[in-house]
Amino acid sequence: MNEKTVQNAAGRLVPVEINGIAQVPYQGVGKHRPSGRRYGPPLASCGDYPADGNKVVADLKTALKRAGLRDGMTISTHHHFRDGDLVANAIFDAAAEMGVKDLRWFPSAAFPCHEPIIKHLENGVVHHIEGSLNGPLGDYCSSGRMCGMGVLRSHGGRYQAVQDGEVHIDIAVIAAPTADPFGNATGDRGPSACGLLGFALADSQYADRVIVVTDNLVPFPCIPWQIHGNYVDYVVVMECIGEPAKIVSGTTEITRSPDRLLIAEYAARFVEEAGILRDGFSFQAGAGGTALSFSIFLSDMMRERRIKARFARGGSNLYLVKMLEEGLVQYILDGQTFDLEGVRSMRENTNHVNTSPFTSYNYHGKGNFASIVDVVVLGATEVDVHFNANVVTHSDGRLLHGIGGWQNCLFSKCTMLPIPSFRDRIPVLVDRVTTLCGPGELIDVIITERGIAINPLRQDLLSKLRGSSLPIRPMEEIKAEVEEICGGKPAPPEVGEKIVAAVKWVDGTVIDCVRQAKMATVSW
Amino acid sequence: MNEKTVQNAAGRLVPVEINGIAQVPYQGVGKHRPSGRRYGPPLASCGDYPADGNKVVADLKTALKRAGLRDGMTISTHHHFRDGDLVANAIFDAAAEMGVKDLRWFPSAAFPCHEPIIKHLENGVVHHIEGSLNGPLGDYCSSGRMCGMGVLRSHGGRYQAVQDGEVHIDIAVIAAPTADPFGNATGDRGPSACGLLGFALADSQYADRVIVVTDNLVPFPCIPWQIHGNYVDYVVVMECIGEPAKIVSGTTEITRSPDRLLIAEYAARFVEEAGILRDGFSFQAGAGGTALSFSIFLSDMMRERRIKARFARGGSNLYLVKMLEEGLVQYILDGQTFDLEGVRSMRENTNHVNTSPFTSYNYHGKGNFASIVDVVVLGATEVDVHFNANVVTHSDGRLLHGIGGWQNCLFSKCTMLPIPSFRDRIPVLVDRVTTLCGPGELIDVIITERGIAINPLRQDLLSKLRGSSLPIRPMEEIKAEVEEICGGKPAPPEVGEKIVAAVKWVDGTVIDCVRQAKMATVSW
Repeated sequence: MNEKTVQNAAGRLVPVEINGIAQVPYQGVGKHRPSGRRYGPPLASCGDYPADGNKVVADLKTALKRAGLRDGMTISTHHHFRDGDLVANAIFDAAAEMGVKDLRWFPSAAFPCHEPIIKHLENGVVHHIEGSLNGPLGDYCSSGRMCGMGVLRSHGGRYQAVQDGEVHIDIAVIAAPTADPFGNATGDRGPSACGLLGFALADSQYADRVIVVTDNLVPFPCIPWQIHGNYVDYVVVMECIGEPAKIVSGTTEITRSPDRLLIAEYAARFVEEAGILRDGFSFQAGAGGTALSFSIFLSDMMRERRIKARFARGGSNLYLVKMLEEGLVQYILDGQTFDLEGVRSMRENTNHVNTSPFTSYNYHGKGNFASIVDVVVLGATEVDVHFNANVVTHSDGRLLHGIGGWQNCLFSKCTMLPIPSFRDRIPVLVDRVTTLCGPGELIDVIITERGIAINPLRQDLLSKLRGSSLPIRPMEEIKAEVEEICGGKPAPPEVGEKIVAAVKWVDGTVIDCVRQAKMATVSW
Repeated sequence: MNEKTVQNAAGRLVPVEINGIAQVPYQGVGKHRPSGRRYGPPLASCGDYPADGNKVVADLKTALKRAGLRDGMTISTHHHFRDGDLVANAIFDAAAEMGVKDLRWFPSAAFPCHEPIIKHLENGVVHHIEGSLNGPLGDYCSSGRMCGMGVLRSHGGRYQAVQDGEVHIDIAVIAAPTADPFGNATGDRGPSACGLLGFALADSQYADRVIVVTDNLVPFPCIPWQIHGNYVDYVVVMECIGEPAKIVSGTTEITRSPDRLLIAEYAARFVEEAGILRDGFSFQAGAGGTALSFSIFLSDMMRERRIKARFARGGSNLYLVKMLEEGLVQYILDGQTFDLEGVRSMRENTNHVNTSPFTSYNYHGKGNFASIVDVVVLGATEVDVHFNANVVTHSDGRLLHGIGGWQNCLFSKCTMLPIPSFRDRIPVLVDRVTTLCGPGELIDVIITERGIAINPLRQDLLSKLRGSSLPIRPMEEIKAEVEEICGGKPAPPEVGEKIVAAVKWVDGTVIDCVRQAKMATVSW
């Protein structure tokens, strides 16, 4: 396969066409202006829906049939259950039984529990996947066996793509921990409670047909209605839609590694010394071990200095909820609950607020929350000397991680990447990232166990940190030290020519692509 | 003026064109199927909005200028402040100062406080109004002096028209009792608290430009965000946006009239005898004196029989809130708060839920709440022998009342009109209603002080009420008795040929029109 490529504004060769659709190459941050209109789905009429509001049908297959499932359609799902989802596999099993082929699966993210879908990729039921690919499905995509090209979009980019009509969803299936017969649905209660359903918002608003699948049907009205039944066509009751134990992200444990604890402490001290830690400030930290430890160092500082945050953006978890309930944080604006304490708090605390990629991340809106946040703490698999970062591939070229809200969060007033300087003796600081996910101009601070590098574009931060006791060092210097320890620069990734996936920027342009990995562990 | 008309499915002559736009005549209940797509506003880009989220501009005029206000545009406002609104007049005063002409004002409703806009209709700043017209503006429209044709849409019909692209809003101005600099806004708190902002939802979602005007700016985030700042272009701070005392509807007093009390009691007893009053039932009653008394009779019955309602649809008020807090009603699904107790309850009770014309009334959605409600109690100015009803004009042909959510509510499982049989010695029961607002097939029961008429289409109700002690009587018999008392049928309305306003059905078709009234009190 020789896809036609073009060099984009970041100097990356990207495909001019993805799965038959012409693309705009990345133009630079804030450079691409959309010229179209929001997508308008076909108008519905109440005359076509049951007057008593009861949209319950016998089972998933019936709902898919009534929704007109046929070859080549796009089916969307969401990932609120993370590795505990039981619905996506059921959809494609049903589609296989119905003899349907060439579907595009458009999940907000795929997890290891979705490995069974590989058989549907092999047998032609699913043509390709567009969505964050974690674990085995990413590896499968890396191997080059998938028919179409994978497309990685940020949470905000997924909303943008649907809103803008770049991705037309034929049938959205929304797994909902509680729902009523009209289709109003919530994630914050029920036996499979997962918190919120924000990733399914775009799908509910813009898909031609919307199916809500629940294992906890309540009489109308289901309150709160995170998803409006007015967008829903059919409701299906299943015995179990998710495994609560696996809903909890495995990444919500505090790190015990001394290096990572040091990194987390540096990050918290940096926030203080940069003058960000002041009354009414705001922050976002992910669910990784380092980020959690950062939150704990931060909360200690806040308690000590009697500083309160106006809001924190979630991924919520036990530690963030503690801060809320202690009064250290006034509001949690939550995009995803990472543990059951997050779910409980969202249900019980009116100041633990349900958000969505629309409010938080959609770049084709009239602003979004991401750029309002004072400081955000993110991860990365690689960072280059220009502060460009990678979050989806490893240095060996394998696509193993989803992109999540990472790109969107880069718009924060101060973006920090607390990362180890090397992993498995492979440097994380590199000359050129394997896959470009985030442009360096948006990444302000790299925090490693061997020192902190501040982006030279942020002279304000450099001057604030002058004379600091923190190890502020030039990126090149840290990098050279790491290379010495690891015995040189990392080997270039062993990849082929074939483009297996494209990475979109937040505005729908193509920022980079992933090529077929030679090391992909193809075991199917 | 000789507008071209066509006879619609209800036998009414309606204009084929309204303000230059071709119309579909009413086809019958549920007969018109929309074929288009939801309107798609131009895509925005975060790159064009302040990264720090601060959209505050100096004043209303600056916001209107930045929004590109020019001749012929459509400006929308909402009526949550009812007769206490201070913003709409300020907009058109500003437009006049800017020298702008021929605007279309698209309020969700106009109230007597908007009488000053008559001068802008006279001086050409405002070309015409499309929206419910109460009092002086209705009278002005009746007089035939307004340049364009008035268009009366139900709450749901207004959402439908905007969603479907029938009405394109250039600039929406949303008066918000509390807002943050990003444009997130709520109506449930602040010195001018009015409860909710649901009538402005369509405007926020679909207008090209959205201006939020507040007198209570709070730091981001304004929680709850009934209006999403992601739809908002500019935020303006004014000293006072509404007069709380006038926000309260004057119609929230229980009737003292013995006749109306009797009607209210009949209505409540009917609900019981018809078998509607059972555990888990639902109801909606307006804010008029009779409706309030009905609620009180109903709550007495519920208390006595230990029956609880699953939900009540608001307009909320003191009495409904009492029922909620006493546990007689599990949820209030509120479309409009009619008094300050309603506002307080919405702020404090998580089961007092904010709804909108989208959830409750939009006919071009995948169902709506209206048809799920077991029983609704509404008013009318006239009802004919086929149960057709009028709610906007008087028998003299004058347009004096808004249409509100009245048409939408007719879809309830049992629609009752408790009305006096005559007013000022003019019969309310007539051969043919002056203006057709609601088709008789959707109106089930007419309750007057002289008897209750059940629509012959509802044989189920007729058989349930057989042997009742309630005075169930044929409509014709009650009507004949009333005519005897009043000395005959009402005089035909004295109207001219000119069509001054059109009444839309819930699906956007034209159900009737209003002609120039000879009795209009033109005093401007």
